[in-house]
Amino acid sequence: MSNRSNNEEMVVTPWEVKGDIDYMKLIKQFGTQFITPELRKRLASYSNGEEHMFLRRGLYFSHRDLDWILDMYDKGNKFALYTGRGPSGKTHIGHLVAWHLTKFLQDIFDTELYFQITDDEKFLFKEHLGLDETIQLGYDNALDVIAIGFDPKKTYLIHDVRDIDLLYHTALRVAKKVTYSTVRAVFGFRNDSNIGQIFFPAIEAVPAFLPSLVHKRKVPVLIPSAIDQDPFWRVTRDIAHKLGFYKPAALQGMFLPGLLEGGKMSSSIEDSAIFTTDTPKAAKKKIMRAFTGGRVSVAEQRKLGGNPEICTVFQYFKYLFEPDDRKLEQIANECRSGARLCGECKLELADRVGKFLIEHQERREKAKDIIDEFSSDKIREKLRG
Amino acid sequence: MSNRSNNEEMVVTPWEVKGDIDYMKLIKQFGTQFITPELRKRLASYSNGEEHMFLRRGLYFSHRDLDWILDMYDKGNKFALYTGRGPSGKTHIGHLVAWHLTKFLQDIFDTELYFQITDDEKFLFKEHLGLDETIQLGYDNALDVIAIGFDPKKTYLIHDVRDIDLLYHTALRVAKKVTYSTVRAVFGFRNDSNIGQIFFPAIEAVPAFLPSLVHKRKVPVLIPSAIDQDPFWRVTRDIAHKLGFYKPAALQGMFLPGLLEGGKMSSSIEDSAIFTTDTPKAAKKKIMRAFTGGRVSVAEQRKLGGNPEICTVFQYFKYLFEPDDRKLEQIANECRSGARLCGECKLELADRVGKFLIEHQERREKAKDIIDEFSSDKIREKLRG
Repeated sequence: MSNRSNNEEMVVTPWEVKGDIDYMKLIKQFGTQFITPELRKRLASYSNGEEHMFLRRGLYFSHRDLDWILDMYDKGNKFALYTGRGPSGKTHIGHLVAWHLTKFLQDIFDTELYFQITDDEKFLFKEHLGLDETIQLGYDNALDVIAIGFDPKKTYLIHDVRDIDLLYHTALRVAKKVTYSTVRAVFGFRNDSNIGQIFFPAIEAVPAFLPSLVHKRKVPVLIPSAIDQDPFWRVTRDIAHKLGFYKPAALQGMFLPGLLEGGKMSSSIEDSAIFTTDTPKAAKKKIMRAFTGGRVSVAEQRKLGGNPEICTVFQYFKYLFEPDDRKLEQIANECRSGARLCGECKLELADRVGKFLIEHQERREKAKDIIDEFSSDKIREKLRG
Repeated sequence: MSNRSNNEEMVVTPWEVKGDIDYMKLIKQFGTQFITPELRKRLASYSNGEEHMFLRRGLYFSHRDLDWILDMYDKGNKFALYTGRGPSGKTHIGHLVAWHLTKFLQDIFDTELYFQITDDEKFLFKEHLGLDETIQLGYDNALDVIAIGFDPKKTYLIHDVRDIDLLYHTALRVAKKVTYSTVRAVFGFRNDSNIGQIFFPAIEAVPAFLPSLVHKRKVPVLIPSAIDQDPFWRVTRDIAHKLGFYKPAALQGMFLPGLLEGGKMSSSIEDSAIFTTDTPKAAKKKIMRAFTGGRVSVAEQRKLGGNPEICTVFQYFKYLFEPDDRKLEQIANECRSGARLCGECKLELADRVGKFLIEHQERREKAKDIIDEFSSDKIREKLRG
């Protein structure tokens, strides 16, 4: 279950992913659970056996207390969803992965979604970014969130700086229970970490507890996210009971690899990612330059075949652009046999990505008209009520 | 310049004051300046030579950039005042010392006052206090602040949790510039400090910069407070220029000693302090039990005299209840000569304290009607304007 070919030591924190990612090792290291076939089957039973392709393909592979979330649901204690976005740059296609799954879960279970936009975090952790810059990026990124199609009646966008009045009280309660030792061990903070970074895990914990405050009863919370966010949930889970809340559950995925060799898609490396605001032409240009599993020459590729396992183009089909498993397998087989060359394969992906971008950008434009429907004021009203 | 008789090692932080306080040593340790007779004279020149008794008596003895604040004032760049209260309990008379001086300065220089009520701090630093408790104490303490008679048109009460929307943006900018190393060295934080404590200095820094944000120009700020708060200003001053603000100046006083032997007045030790809400009778009872510089028997006191230097009752005359220097000196002389016995001296103090309490409590009741005039909404309006 590795999707990197380089041999660097694996480092996975919410702010850094590098090296050869061994996802099974990560499960052990983080202390999460593998999503068993039985659990997948149980989850699929809530959607008439229809399984989301990320689960079917093992891209979402790790969890914490997912079985418990379903037990609670069965008993009538419906969970809320919590996920988020750190606005360090434009939204890219990699970000959409967790959101797509989140929408799928919202649709099936008809749940609330608390969506946190951590403009404070990205300011504190990115040396070159100004605060008004991350705040602005947060509003820009929010359009992509809305474009996913979440239910406006049940979805709340929380921009940390703007909405700190909703977060600070609970963040203080969290912070009082978390020592420097703990965050140093969990996140690797050091003496030269800034004091905002050290406090930040308390802010990220709050949306896991907000649903309980809003509904004035203990509400289970499920957090779909890439697995690099797990350290936050570990700290949050540790103190949840002490504050009278349930531990949040988690559903955790792999990273979408970047278009370049090694590393995940990054907002800060232009060519590593396809941004949701890229023109189809710009996206095509990036795809045509992407790292693949192809051979040095056409002749060799025809003879020996390519390697879809290490190919970033194939990963895009797998993650988002080929929902049909049989067709995906066909692409892989054609590649391995040498029947499919990288150039034509890239053109096929570019075509699908281009169509997706045009549709997404239309929804993104429409999002501007309905952004108020996702306002955090709905939370304020409920908290007062 | 010591007002403790025990021989414990001196420890002075914003959260702990213990041992034999050597104020001149503290000036060296903190790196502040002694208020010279020349500087006192200059300050008095703004009030027709009338000097506040705390300065006259050396109770306010230390400063940072006070001369610069006056230079700026002379050039027409009027400063704002900033002081505050950590609501860990009821207000006691010791808290009023800095506020009295602050009001004197507001009257003379006709300045704005930003008054911060750090309900978050007291929650984070006091194990036994709940957050809603410190918030409530903050509203209660605010009545004492208003009772001092600050100009409602120019005074803003900032309750940290309620008003976090005014503070968080700037606190993040501060926090990004302050490392764990720095706060560990300055405040003595340790591995078992909670992550809220570590972040808190960023929150305490903000009111030093708010006046500049409100007026959209660099505004000098003067902070009158007891000297134990100096570590906050050291950190705040260190990063002020980096964020485009002036370094805040400070005017720093001694602690009002408690009624018991050793230690300062403490909200959490009932008998160590006279609370502003005590009845004159309750206050008298505490004063009659106070630690004095008297002898073991009347006969011995008549013969050898008492020691006003170590007497808590005398400190009360000196700090607040005998503004006339000659009369204060007379009390000291009568004590030293044996002419004044502790019992009668205590009764005299109790009488004055009782009268003060009745008047203060009347103003405190009236404060409830005008509390809205001190609202932080005035800051919000200015920031928007």
